[in-house]
Amino acid sequence: MTPDAINRLVAQLAKLPGIGEKTAQRLAFHVLRSSPEYARSLAAALVDVVDKVRLCSRCFSLHDGAAEALCGFCTDPRRDERLVCVVEGIADELAVERTREFRGRYHVLHGVLSPLEGIGPEQLRIKELLQRLGDGVVTEVVVATNPDVEGEATALYLTRLLKPLGVKVSRLAQGLPMGGDLEFADQATLARAFATRRDL
Amino acid sequence: MTPDAINRLVAQLAKLPGIGEKTAQRLAFHVLRSSPEYARSLAAALVDVVDKVRLCSRCFSLHDGAAEALCGFCTDPRRDERLVCVVEGIADELAVERTREFRGRYHVLHGVLSPLEGIGPEQLRIKELLQRLGDGVVTEVVVATNPDVEGEATALYLTRLLKPLGVKVSRLAQGLPMGGDLEFADQATLARAFATRRDL
Repeated sequence: MTPDAINRLVAQLAKLPGIGEKTAQRLAFHVLRSSPEYARSLAAALVDVVDKVRLCSRCFSLHDGAAEALCGFCTDPRRDERLVCVVEGIADELAVERTREFRGRYHVLHGVLSPLEGIGPEQLRIKELLQRLGDGVVTEVVVATNPDVEGEATALYLTRLLKPLGVKVSRLAQGLPMGGDLEFADQATLARAFATRRDL
Repeated sequence: MTPDAINRLVAQLAKLPGIGEKTAQRLAFHVLRSSPEYARSLAAALVDVVDKVRLCSRCFSLHDGAAEALCGFCTDPRRDERLVCVVEGIADELAVERTREFRGRYHVLHGVLSPLEGIGPEQLRIKELLQRLGDGVVTEVVVATNPDVEGEATALYLTRLLKPLGVKVSRLAQGLPMGGDLEFADQATLARAFATRRDL
């Protein structure tokens, strides 16, 4: 008895990650209750994103410039081109950017080594990273993959690949999170914090 | 540095209920990673819903027929027109419908009495319900508002309004949920289940 238009919207919304049938229905009703302008703006934004956004041909960040153009990170002269931060995905890149600590360039792998899911080096942007390092401009690569099993494996793989090129390879520090509590830290984190303790 | 097109999509998605900035970003990246056809279908479904779906002029359910037409519930001759189930919203109507227990008509209030939020009887479809009952066809009104403070208050208000019209007014049974556990039932539910216990 629900109008077809609603069923179609619910079906489309339910394809989003973390959105089940019930939530999709709730969202659809919200759209209906909102002003028609909202639905139209959201629809326009969706179409815009797939029409305009592409990957930078050097670092594989997102940008909405011309097809062959480089992204804002790669073209910003104030960013240090000798320093490259390798991240798994765009969300990680944005997280690093929010710290305002890093003023180098990026390289987005768009994934992480995961034999279980059949993702090997050739599915990631690793070949392109090696090509990028070919001209000798980059002196340090910060491997900022996640500190989990797959991220660690990817970091190890990259280190073995990059070290012979004479480039410095570093990894983000691991330890207790700021504002954290020893009592509630997991064993692996606490053990790592001990093993890599700093002299004061 | 994020392309504007993405920022716009994230801003639009973050307006949805229960979707914060982080989730909106995750959804936007998902849309980017999906096939462009997905974004286009979702956009089309959104526009479709606001263009086509309207409220039934009698029961205020959703329908996508002509502007003055009645909805599928109101026009289905197999549904008992003497029985009307009053619900707070469309989602409740769908929940009742899923039980396949109820074969009467509906009346959607589109809200519930809530003095704190400034929602009085005139904001709900109560006047229209009274008009509907004017022709004497309806013999029973099942008040299926939620069993919470506002739903109960609305049910009480409706009962006082409808009883004098000589129509039977009933309310959904309250008690332990099926498959529930006495041990984990809240006090109010257990107390209500005692007070309204049935003879076997």
